[in-house]
Amino acid sequence: MKVSDRLGLYLQERGEMINRALEGFLPPPEAYPPVIHEAMRYSVFAGGKRLRPILHLATTDLFTDDPASSLFFACSLELVHTYSLIHDDLPSMDDDDFRRGRPTSHKVFGEAVAVLAGDALLTLAFEIIAREGRASAFPPDKVLAAAAELARAAGSAGMIGGQVADISSLPGSWDEVTLAYIHSHKTGALIRASVCSAAILHGASASQLERLASFASSLGLCFQIVDDILDITGDEARMGKRPGSDERNARATYPGLHGLTKSQELAKILYKKAVRELAPFGDRAGTLRALAAYLVDRES
Amino acid sequence: MKVSDRLGLYLQERGEMINRALEGFLPPPEAYPPVIHEAMRYSVFAGGKRLRPILHLATTDLFTDDPASSLFFACSLELVHTYSLIHDDLPSMDDDDFRRGRPTSHKVFGEAVAVLAGDALLTLAFEIIAREGRASAFPPDKVLAAAAELARAAGSAGMIGGQVADISSLPGSWDEVTLAYIHSHKTGALIRASVCSAAILHGASASQLERLASFASSLGLCFQIVDDILDITGDEARMGKRPGSDERNARATYPGLHGLTKSQELAKILYKKAVRELAPFGDRAGTLRALAAYLVDRES
Repeated sequence: MKVSDRLGLYLQERGEMINRALEGFLPPPEAYPPVIHEAMRYSVFAGGKRLRPILHLATTDLFTDDPASSLFFACSLELVHTYSLIHDDLPSMDDDDFRRGRPTSHKVFGEAVAVLAGDALLTLAFEIIAREGRASAFPPDKVLAAAAELARAAGSAGMIGGQVADISSLPGSWDEVTLAYIHSHKTGALIRASVCSAAILHGASASQLERLASFASSLGLCFQIVDDILDITGDEARMGKRPGSDERNARATYPGLHGLTKSQELAKILYKKAVRELAPFGDRAGTLRALAAYLVDRES
Repeated sequence: MKVSDRLGLYLQERGEMINRALEGFLPPPEAYPPVIHEAMRYSVFAGGKRLRPILHLATTDLFTDDPASSLFFACSLELVHTYSLIHDDLPSMDDDDFRRGRPTSHKVFGEAVAVLAGDALLTLAFEIIAREGRASAFPPDKVLAAAAELARAAGSAGMIGGQVADISSLPGSWDEVTLAYIHSHKTGALIRASVCSAAILHGASASQLERLASFASSLGLCFQIVDDILDITGDEARMGKRPGSDERNARATYPGLHGLTKSQELAKILYKKAVRELAPFGDRAGTLRALAAYLVDRES
């Protein structure tokens, strides 16, 4: 079996595992008041790639053969990511009507319910970590440490800070420093937390945690640059959205600052930097390496 | 010293203790990007009564003489409450321009930053619980249990569910069941979690926890009914907002359903029910009793 086929199987298996777990963690759609639970499910089951939970599970593979052990944490990462998308799409922010080819939450449920569905998903993420983490075999102290890592990454010094900088940045005023801040915070922080939370839960040493944090930081930036490139070169059917949205929204991007060629080179450099950090983990890091290669070469 | 003077001193001392701790937990206003940290602080330091953290600390008094031990958790309760106010005030929800006599967050910072400031406060609440709880002397398992209690109370089966039911209820369609659901969830759930989280952290027995949960449920409903009464009879200067807002917003209230006199009787009955639950705690529950009396007799 080629590496790409093996990764394809892994992504499918882990994706199904994550979807089944999310199905169980989300309140049933008929739970009172139904509109909020329908809205939560609408966005969680919207065809996302499950990148963050899969990164968490692939990091888990470095330490254990039981992929289900921290599945609850993986699901919480996806809930935090989904909440951020719902709020980013709001009329007062990016004002997006479509995501992944479907109308956005506020177009379907109205703005008030969309705000509250995002709030509810963020809250549910921490409820799951606290409740399931407590019932798990992990030391409660490690669960708290992983929760703190996620909360810091998602907060005003992480993902939210990146979004604020992004919506506050004036077109044409971008520089390398602002752009690096936006990318490393808006998407990078949660990708890093996806990897580091698994390392923390599974008892990584300080040097292992440092390596993995560095891997995830490079990978996160690489991922975002490829995203920006695909927004220019991508195929509408594969992307589920019309290319060129960054330019239409006057969004700060690497291709906008450095051009396409230099951005593609930078993505390759970051990819190589990322996988170098995995060396000490040997064969156990095979999936993380394949994932990194897939993320840099993807077409959607 | 009369009970009311003693309570006044308690409220002042604990209020200052909470404000100092919040000051330390919130990122400095100049932290990048400053607008989000200014917005977070604007709403947290807006003259709130600190009822939820004070209820938490007064419950703490039942179990320990060290009021500072779970101050971090008390502050997290206030952050969750503040986030809910910012989002409730948004144009897509209650569309309120003023709160406590000051312009609401979205009037000052714009809608996008107001949404994100609420998100950031909710996230910070769980960051503080995880980080400070981990550094505290509490067993990490108890910290997780208290965090789960707060998250459930704040989520779609608690506070958010109540808000959804409130904004979805059609004027004139209220009945006793819907109204009880809205009140027990929109405000009741977090008040209950304020009390129960303290009991859980400090190792309350199952029967003590049950008593305190019942106390808090009655108190929370009593508090909300008094709020609704004050919205009709209250003094604008003391309230910091114009009375009659519930009627203008076609909001479901007890006075709207049952009239003023019956609502006042109901508040008294709930107050008595609440304090009866405190009997087994003897003198240690003096502050909780005085707080309950204050909440039912308050004028703002």
